[in-house]
Amino acid sequence: MWPAASLLPIATPQPRTRLSGGSRHRTSQRRRCSTLTVLSSSSSSSDAKEDLVIAAGRLLWGRGLPPQTLVSAVRSGWSAAWHLMMRQLAPSSSSSAAAAASPPGSYARPTSSFPSVPASYRRNPKNLHLYVALPCPWAHRVLVVRALKGLRSALPVSIAAPGLDGSWLFHPRGPSVVGEDLSPGPDGANARRTLREVYGLRRGGYDGRSTVPMLWDAERKEVVCNESYAIIEFLNSADFGDEVHGGSGLDLCPSELKNEIDDWNRVIYPNVNNGVYRCGFAQSQEAYDAAVNGLFNTLDMIESHLSSSRYLCGDAPTLADVCLFTTLIRFDLVYNVLFKCTKKKLLEYPNLYGYTCDMYQIAEVASTCNFEAIMDGYYCTLFPLNPGGIRPVMPSACNHDLLSKPHYREALSSSVKQSIHASET
Amino acid sequence: MWPAASLLPIATPQPRTRLSGGSRHRTSQRRRCSTLTVLSSSSSSSDAKEDLVIAAGRLLWGRGLPPQTLVSAVRSGWSAAWHLMMRQLAPSSSSSAAAAASPPGSYARPTSSFPSVPASYRRNPKNLHLYVALPCPWAHRVLVVRALKGLRSALPVSIAAPGLDGSWLFHPRGPSVVGEDLSPGPDGANARRTLREVYGLRRGGYDGRSTVPMLWDAERKEVVCNESYAIIEFLNSADFGDEVHGGSGLDLCPSELKNEIDDWNRVIYPNVNNGVYRCGFAQSQEAYDAAVNGLFNTLDMIESHLSSSRYLCGDAPTLADVCLFTTLIRFDLVYNVLFKCTKKKLLEYPNLYGYTCDMYQIAEVASTCNFEAIMDGYYCTLFPLNPGGIRPVMPSACNHDLLSKPHYREALSSSVKQSIHASET
Repeated sequence: MWPAASLLPIATPQPRTRLSGGSRHRTSQRRRCSTLTVLSSSSSSSDAKEDLVIAAGRLLWGRGLPPQTLVSAVRSGWSAAWHLMMRQLAPSSSSSAAAAASPPGSYARPTSSFPSVPASYRRNPKNLHLYVALPCPWAHRVLVVRALKGLRSALPVSIAAPGLDGSWLFHPRGPSVVGEDLSPGPDGANARRTLREVYGLRRGGYDGRSTVPMLWDAERKEVVCNESYAIIEFLNSADFGDEVHGGSGLDLCPSELKNEIDDWNRVIYPNVNNGVYRCGFAQSQEAYDAAVNGLFNTLDMIESHLSSSRYLCGDAPTLADVCLFTTLIRFDLVYNVLFKCTKKKLLEYPNLYGYTCDMYQIAEVASTCNFEAIMDGYYCTLFPLNPGGIRPVMPSACNHDLLSKPHYREALSSSVKQSIHASET
Repeated sequence: MWPAASLLPIATPQPRTRLSGGSRHRTSQRRRCSTLTVLSSSSSSSDAKEDLVIAAGRLLWGRGLPPQTLVSAVRSGWSAAWHLMMRQLAPSSSSSAAAAASPPGSYARPTSSFPSVPASYRRNPKNLHLYVALPCPWAHRVLVVRALKGLRSALPVSIAAPGLDGSWLFHPRGPSVVGEDLSPGPDGANARRTLREVYGLRRGGYDGRSTVPMLWDAERKEVVCNESYAIIEFLNSADFGDEVHGGSGLDLCPSELKNEIDDWNRVIYPNVNNGVYRCGFAQSQEAYDAAVNGLFNTLDMIESHLSSSRYLCGDAPTLADVCLFTTLIRFDLVYNVLFKCTKKKLLEYPNLYGYTCDMYQIAEVASTCNFEAIMDGYYCTLFPLNPGGIRPVMPSACNHDLLSKPHYREALSSSVKQSIHASET
C-alpha cells in the first residue's frame, strides 16, 4: 500500500439514517484525521481486490521502502506525470518567447493556421459551412452571432462532440441541425467521422491542430478561417442578402463603437476569456496567482462598469458582449471549480450576474446554450485536471429557469434613464 | 508529444494590456478550441525543454502509435493511477461488507483503534494532553469544545501540520501553544518530530494509523482515545474542577436534549460531516451522485429548520452544532471545489450562512479557526485530488471580517420571539 494522506477521517462505516424523533438507536460518531502510513499498517482486510492493489503497490514500489519515502515518491511521480501532460495540453511560457514576461509555468497559446477570412467572402458569402462544438466558448461566440444575425439558413452548421481519444467526433445518428436542436450530430457538409478528417480534405492536406470553430468553403473544399473573432466580425459585416431570416437586425460592431469594442476586447480577452484558461492551465503557483488576480481584478472593474451601463458599450449588445458572455455563462458551471476560479462565483457579482441573465434572455442567445454539453465537455475532456473523470453536480444557479428571472437591467438603458430624469424634473 | 484534449483554446500569445480609451493599437483576438493530435502536429518549437518532453513522450509511448490511441492510452493510465491511489487514500465500499448497500466506489471508513475514553478519566481527568491538526474537521471539534468549556489550561495541546510525505509533523521552532496562538508548533508533551512517533511511545507500541485528534495520558504514556465524538463528549462532561478558566459555562449536551442531539448527529454525520468526504472520495460516478444528493438534500432540510431555530436544538449551541459547524466553516473554503460539492456554496443558503456566522462570532469558536491552515492542508495533502498541487485563491466570503458581520439570528431566540409576541398583543 502506498500513498499516505493526512486529513483522512477514519471511522466505522455508518448506515445512512434519517432524523426520526422517537428513535433511540445510537450510532457511534467515530471520526478522526489520519496519516496513512500504509506499508506498515495492520490492515486485516481479506478483500481480493484490496489484496490486488496492495500487491500492485508492492510490485511497483517494493516492499522495503519506508512508508514516508514511498508517499513522497508517489507524490513526486504523480506530480511529474501531471506536469508532463499539462505541458502538452497547455504550452507554458517557458517555451514561448512572447510570454517571457509572464511567471514561469504560465499558459501561452500557439498560433493559428487560418487566421482571417479572405475579403472575397465578404462580398459573396456563398457555400459556407460552419463546424463548431458546444462546450467550446470560442465556437459559442460564432453560434451566438450566427443566431443574432439571422444566419441559420445562410450558414448551416455541423456540431462535433469531444471523443475520449481527444478528437472532435461527429455522431452519424445524431439529429441533423436543420431544426436547430443544438446537439452533436452528423457532418452535414462532408459526411466525415471526425473534424480531423474534414481538415484533411482541403487541397494540400493538413497536419496541424483541428480546432473549432472552423468556417468551411463547401464548394472549393477549403478551410476559410478557424479564428473565432475573425469569423464573428465576418458574420456581422458580410452581405448575406436575402438569406437572412429573423435575428435581431443588430449591427454588433457599429463604426462609432468600434474603438470602444476593441478597447474592451483588449481587457477582456487576456484577463477573462483567456484568463480563466490561464488559471486552469497554470503549471506553477506563481503563474496561477498572477492569472487569478488579473481575472478577478478585471471582473471587479466590469462589475462596477455594469452598475451604470446595461451592456459594455451602452444600450445594445456588441461583439464585446458576445465575447464576455460565452465565458460568463461557463463561469459557475465549470471555471469556478475545474479552473480554480474560486474567489467568487458569478452569482456573487450582482451586476455581472444580472447582465448574464439579460444576455441569456435574448431568445437567439439562449438557443445556443447547452449546459449539459458544456459540463460534459470540460469534465470529460480535460482529464489531467479531473483525473477521476467524475462529473460534478450542476450548480443550482446554472439553469434556464433561474437565468430567465427578471434582472431589471432595462432601467439602465439611456432612454429609460432619461424618462425617469424627465419625470423627476 | 502525447495527450490530446479538446476545448483547448489556441491563439497567439497576447500581451496583457489595460483598457485605454485613446489607444488605437489593435491586438488580434485569435482563439479556437483544438484537439491536439500531437504526434503528427507540425510544431516548429526549438525550445530545449519542449524537446525533452517530446523525447520523453516518444520514449514512453513510442513514435509509431497513432495519436488517438496514444491519447486513449494516456487517459487510461492516468485514470488507473488515480483509482489505485484513491483506493489507498479512501477505502471504497467494494472492500467493506458494511457498506455493501452503497453504490460501488463509495467511500467507506476503516474502524478506529481507541474508540472511547475509559470511565476513570471522567472522574479524574489529570495529566492529559491533546494532539490535533488545524485542517482536520474532526480535530477542530475538540478544539472548539475545549475552548467553549474553558479547558485551555486544564488540557494543553500540541498542533501538528501535514508533511509532504503524508505524516503529521511537529514544528520544533514553531510557537508553543501556551498563548493559544493556533499555529503548528512543537510536541509539548513528548518532544517528538511526528505524531507517529508519539503513538509509538505507548506500551506495546503501535503500527496502526496515526490520527488526530488524539488524547494522550502524559503520565502513563498511553493513548486514551482518538475518536473525536468520544473526546468531545468526555470534555463536556468530565469534572475538571478548579482547572476551568473562562469558557462559556455551557453544558453542550444537557440530558433533556440528549436524544435530540443524537438524532441530529445521525443525520448530519453520514450526510454532511462524512457526506462531503463521500463526495470527494467517491471512486465512481454512481457513488458521487448518491453522496452529493444526500449532502444537499440534508443541507436543504437544515436550512429550513434554521429558518425558525437559532441553533439546531433551540436557543443555545450543543455538541450537534459543534459537529455541524466544523464542516460548514470548511464548505466554501475547500469542499465546494476540491470535493466537488458544487450544487451550492454555503453562501447561497441564507440561514446556514447566518448560522455559521453566529457560531463563528462566539469568541472562543473564532479563536479555533485558521483558514490558511485549512486550505493549505487540504490542497497540499490530498494530492490525488489536486495533482498540480496548486492552491486556489481563498474565496472572498471566507474571512474574519465577513464572518463577523451582523447575522440578526438573535431574533430567533425564544425569549426574543416571546417579547416580540408580547409587544404585538
